[in-house]
Amino acid sequence: MHIAVVGCGYWGPNLARNLNSIPACKKVTCCDTDAKKLDRLRLRFPDNGFTTDYDKVLSDASVDGVVIATSVSTHFSLAMKAIASGKHVFVEKPMTASAKDAETLIAAAAKAGRSLMVGHTFLFSPPVIKIKECIRKGELGKIHYISATRVNLGIHQKDVSVIWDLAPHDFSILFDWMDETPSKIWAIGRDCIVKGIPDVAFVTMEFPSGTQAHLQLSWLAPSKLRRTAIVGSEKMLVYDDTENVEKVKIFDKGVHYKDPETYGEFQLSYRSGDIWSPRLDTYEPLQVEMESFLEAVRTGKVVKSGGETGLSVVKSLEAAEESLKNQGRMISIS
Amino acid sequence: MHIAVVGCGYWGPNLARNLNSIPACKKVTCCDTDAKKLDRLRLRFPDNGFTTDYDKVLSDASVDGVVIATSVSTHFSLAMKAIASGKHVFVEKPMTASAKDAETLIAAAAKAGRSLMVGHTFLFSPPVIKIKECIRKGELGKIHYISATRVNLGIHQKDVSVIWDLAPHDFSILFDWMDETPSKIWAIGRDCIVKGIPDVAFVTMEFPSGTQAHLQLSWLAPSKLRRTAIVGSEKMLVYDDTENVEKVKIFDKGVHYKDPETYGEFQLSYRSGDIWSPRLDTYEPLQVEMESFLEAVRTGKVVKSGGETGLSVVKSLEAAEESLKNQGRMISIS
Amino acid sequence: MHIAVVGCGYWGPNLARNLNSIPACKKVTCCDTDAKKLDRLRLRFPDNGFTTDYDKVLSDASVDGVVIATSVSTHFSLAMKAIASGKHVFVEKPMTASAKDAETLIAAAAKAGRSLMVGHTFLFSPPVIKIKECIRKGELGKIHYISATRVNLGIHQKDVSVIWDLAPHDFSILFDWMDETPSKIWAIGRDCIVKGIPDVAFVTMEFPSGTQAHLQLSWLAPSKLRRTAIVGSEKMLVYDDTENVEKVKIFDKGVHYKDPETYGEFQLSYRSGDIWSPRLDTYEPLQVEMESFLEAVRTGKVVKSGGETGLSVVKSLEAAEESLKNQGRMISIS
Amino acid sequence: MHIAVVGCGYWGPNLARNLNSIPACKKVTCCDTDAKKLDRLRLRFPDNGFTTDYDKVLSDASVDGVVIATSVSTHFSLAMKAIASGKHVFVEKPMTASAKDAETLIAAAAKAGRSLMVGHTFLFSPPVIKIKECIRKGELGKIHYISATRVNLGIHQKDVSVIWDLAPHDFSILFDWMDETPSKIWAIGRDCIVKGIPDVAFVTMEFPSGTQAHLQLSWLAPSKLRRTAIVGSEKMLVYDDTENVEKVKIFDKGVHYKDPETYGEFQLSYRSGDIWSPRLDTYEPLQVEMESFLEAVRTGKVVKSGGETGLSVVKSLEAAEESLKNQGRMISIS
Repeated sequence: MHIAVVGCGYWGPNLARNLNSIPACKKVTCCDTDAKKLDRLRLRFPDNGFTTDYDKVLSDASVDGVVIATSVSTHFSLAMKAIASGKHVFVEKPMTASAKDAETLIAAAAKAGRSLMVGHTFLFSPPVIKIKECIRKGELGKIHYISATRVNLGIHQKDVSVIWDLAPHDFSILFDWMDETPSKIWAIGRDCIVKGIPDVAFVTMEFPSGTQAHLQLSWLAPSKLRRTAIVGSEKMLVYDDTENVEKVKIFDKGVHYKDPETYGEFQLSYRSGDIWSPRLDTYEPLQVEMESFLEAVRTGKVVKSGGETGLSVVKSLEAAEESLKNQGRMISIS
Repeated sequence: MHIAVVGCGYWGPNLARNLNSIPACKKVTCCDTDAKKLDRLRLRFPDNGFTTDYDKVLSDASVDGVVIATSVSTHFSLAMKAIASGKHVFVEKPMTASAKDAETLIAAAAKAGRSLMVGHTFLFSPPVIKIKECIRKGELGKIHYISATRVNLGIHQKDVSVIWDLAPHDFSILFDWMDETPSKIWAIGRDCIVKGIPDVAFVTMEFPSGTQAHLQLSWLAPSKLRRTAIVGSEKMLVYDDTENVEKVKIFDKGVHYKDPETYGEFQLSYRSGDIWSPRLDTYEPLQVEMESFLEAVRTGKVVKSGGETGLSVVKSLEAAEESLKNQGRMISIS
Repeated sequence: MHIAVVGCGYWGPNLARNLNSIPACKKVTCCDTDAKKLDRLRLRFPDNGFTTDYDKVLSDASVDGVVIATSVSTHFSLAMKAIASGKHVFVEKPMTASAKDAETLIAAAAKAGRSLMVGHTFLFSPPVIKIKECIRKGELGKIHYISATRVNLGIHQKDVSVIWDLAPHDFSILFDWMDETPSKIWAIGRDCIVKGIPDVAFVTMEFPSGTQAHLQLSWLAPSKLRRTAIVGSEKMLVYDDTENVEKVKIFDKGVHYKDPETYGEFQLSYRSGDIWSPRLDTYEPLQVEMESFLEAVRTGKVVKSGGETGLSVVKSLEAAEESLKNQGRMISIS
Repeated sequence: MHIAVVGCGYWGPNLARNLNSIPACKKVTCCDTDAKKLDRLRLRFPDNGFTTDYDKVLSDASVDGVVIATSVSTHFSLAMKAIASGKHVFVEKPMTASAKDAETLIAAAAKAGRSLMVGHTFLFSPPVIKIKECIRKGELGKIHYISATRVNLGIHQKDVSVIWDLAPHDFSILFDWMDETPSKIWAIGRDCIVKGIPDVAFVTMEFPSGTQAHLQLSWLAPSKLRRTAIVGSEKMLVYDDTENVEKVKIFDKGVHYKDPETYGEFQLSYRSGDIWSPRLDTYEPLQVEMESFLEAVRTGKVVKSGGETGLSVVKSLEAAEESLKNQGRMISIS
């Protein structure tokens, strides 16, 4: 297979590096309008192809798929052109700048019979997968609520809010775990440093099942925190991505409600048991993500992080942003 | 001075213990409708007075002040009677079950010329005082936002939400640090275990200065967290009350905005310097709180945690609760 | 049963408090040569007996057992007199100031048919018992080595080295876990603050099974550390007594040696699996220790922390001290 | 300048990478007897020279210096030949397999007027340098003792003990901080996995100043620990190299001895103040190390980590190993 990486700035080279290390990927072509960026990559990957002309990539019949790692505002048009040229498409997150564009893109890919994947890399990471298994098996019971914190100092984006920058990670993870998307969302935040660009936000969601999820997002925080707590009716779980060793901890802890009928007053029983930190695989998620895209190119089937996932994330981003601009007003998501 | 402790259940004995250890307090009388509770206290403090009759306390002319540690719903009537009897009054937090009652109580105390104090003990604790000094001296600069987490497993209250149970701590601390009270508040939460009694809540406030503050409150969490981060324009601070040693850490960290005029585009400079954990005094806050009440009895002047503080907390509790019941609708506080 | 607590300074009141709360203990008598100490205890335990005269305690036929919490140098003579008076004896750790005295005391108790217990409280603590179970069941495999750290700032003892002060804890724990006592010991240390009183020491032991154990002891350290690592052939374990929640962690981790015959060179395989923190009981060890003594008084049988345990600890203390005084020379223990 | 890297296995490529990024280094030649290793490097550094013939490197007059990263047993002969060929030499740690060889090498370099450096990289790392400054300025006072732990699971070396593998780091750091080398050393350890190759060792040193230092070294431990505590008469310091943020913490903590003359008994006063974590530079130590070697090539002067440093480390390794083989016997170092 021959894959083209489009956009070779900050993130593209990581995608190129992983593609170059996968045997099934026989050829990699790097494309960027900035020739200097290509020169730098040429030193690392002398066998790759290089071009500043996206049209050449699309007209090259040997190119099977296109991996788009440009700025968000260009995702839609570049991806649409690729599909129109018969290419399979992988586009970085967030998928598009609007839900409407995302829907158009999904329809175009479906009509053309081309695979469409979105780069929600966390869905391929060992802790996220392990936690999904725990939830699926019912180990945590019914999920009462989830609270996630994703904060540190920097880097302020110049065009999008902290929500568009950081929430795609948590949205994709949460929707995957919950197997549902939120019906209501609230966001409150502040633009502390640059007027018009919120750099701290508190986002709350409610899912159709009743589960609530909360995000704390900030580019302006004393310490890097990447902590998600899941409170279930049977067990509780903490996922701390800054930990080197015990990234996932499962607490055999909970409170059970006993029916008040017989006692006149309800009774609660608290339980506190063992804590267990499962061993996690140690592969690089990006590698598996790229392998998954190659598989989608080969089979025409996307198994994870497809267009619908990308769309659901963009819908929630739009809704959260709307709430933020309207002083935390509750926004319903269809 | 002669002080009566009214309500000798869970908390009252702590107040009695501290009063007994203050030399200026010559006599302590313990009052509770449950004689068994008094019997238990009699073993510990054989020299104290004991009575099940509140009216006897009020009619005893030697009693200078009354310390009320009963359930919230009884605070108002007990305190009003005490003031009517010419006693100085200390009432546990939250001060009353409604802002209206709080205002009536404040007016009554003022008219009677009696001291009225509320048991916001954290205002007397070494880390809270140290942080207030830092803020006052301008060490942190302008406060961008504050985020606090107060969660652990249990204890579910049977009559009030997690907001009325836990937020009084954070409200009193935040208002003291900020030297202002919020003008807007939002609260979203869920009653996971007992229908009608929210046990997890996400509360956001906006102060007139523009500062935002966020609380995460829960009786249903895998680990005990008591962490407050303050993000200022000059420095950032973390107050972790579960730490034994480094409860307060100051991060010489920040991001500065440079005017974009000359560059065409704004510039941000990030700064990351030393981390400093100041030594804190190690006294028991409750002891200092009781000494402060005795001083208020002696002088007729309340220097900290008076009626107005108690009222501001109750106002915010009411507003947060109203928001919670209205799906996170923004509530303005006058 | 009627128990007398002899020595009511720092530790004795804790023993008296626990004895007072055990129903089987019908009467407690407190004995100290300092009447002021007794006066303070009288306030807390008005129903207890009080005397400054040890001989009266011994001549009181109703006294079944004596709990000795005086300074080490007096343990031997007080305990011998108690046994001579037909009392069962509990003596605080370290049992005596010399192994010779310990042996004499054991022989006297045996001859008199009286129970002799030593206050190695850690042997009754939930984490130590849980770890002993793990080792007994073979979960850790063969124990390669154990490394323990017990350091913090203060309190310098005025008459004994840091070894006599702190090592009794670790010695009693280690010997209980290993079910053997060391055959060789080394100790190196320094008297940093007070000449002649070593305040930091590094102690290494070798057990007949080949297991090595290492202690780091200090009154002069920046942070309080109470950490013991056990490295077994099957699993590894960390016991951190400063942790509130996860005091014991078991690491499914190890390295296996494969016979080199077939490969020409030996092969090692490393394994890293789950981490598990078992729930621990939460009772007060001192309470269980006192209950155990009462049981020993009742039945005449000591089930844990008897004279032989106390003797083995004193033997190792003597040997370690001898090594320390001889620049780390290896001392054999018979 | 033209530098040759000799030995391109595990570590050599890191040295080559850093040399390639230093502008003053105009040419890098990679040398290894294994052509496959060179092939791999050729992809990364296509402009470098490559050879399997060490003699060619030495006979190439354009080569100014040789960086030796082969196995320890070959250091001496390769370095001697390089000096005989007039090259400046950088040799990885430990410098040689014996102190005698180290002395011969130092003499040869001195006679030939060539720079000789040893790869004790930690001496160029920001935390080690910052701590040295603290000690030099007297901030910690007189150093009472230092305790270091360097343990984790793996990697077992097949030819040397854990002492020769891990202690070079701590020896070089300690000798640099103390500005002296130990006069006495003890080592006790065990070969738990492979007979004849100790994989856990407890090493204690005494310096002429009286300071004691202690190392805990192991390839067989449940968690990675890289913690060094320095206890001074004025302050205490903890250096934890596994921490991302607060690698160095200074505790304003100590105990002061007051002369007993006037009181009859000595008095100790304990002090516990602020904790301070200084900001550290974030450069890569290896880069600075290589720059330092290039400077030594240019000027003929070695400013840090020269032959004498390498020799002092090898002397202590030899002495520690001798103690280990003699059951912890104290070994004097001249």
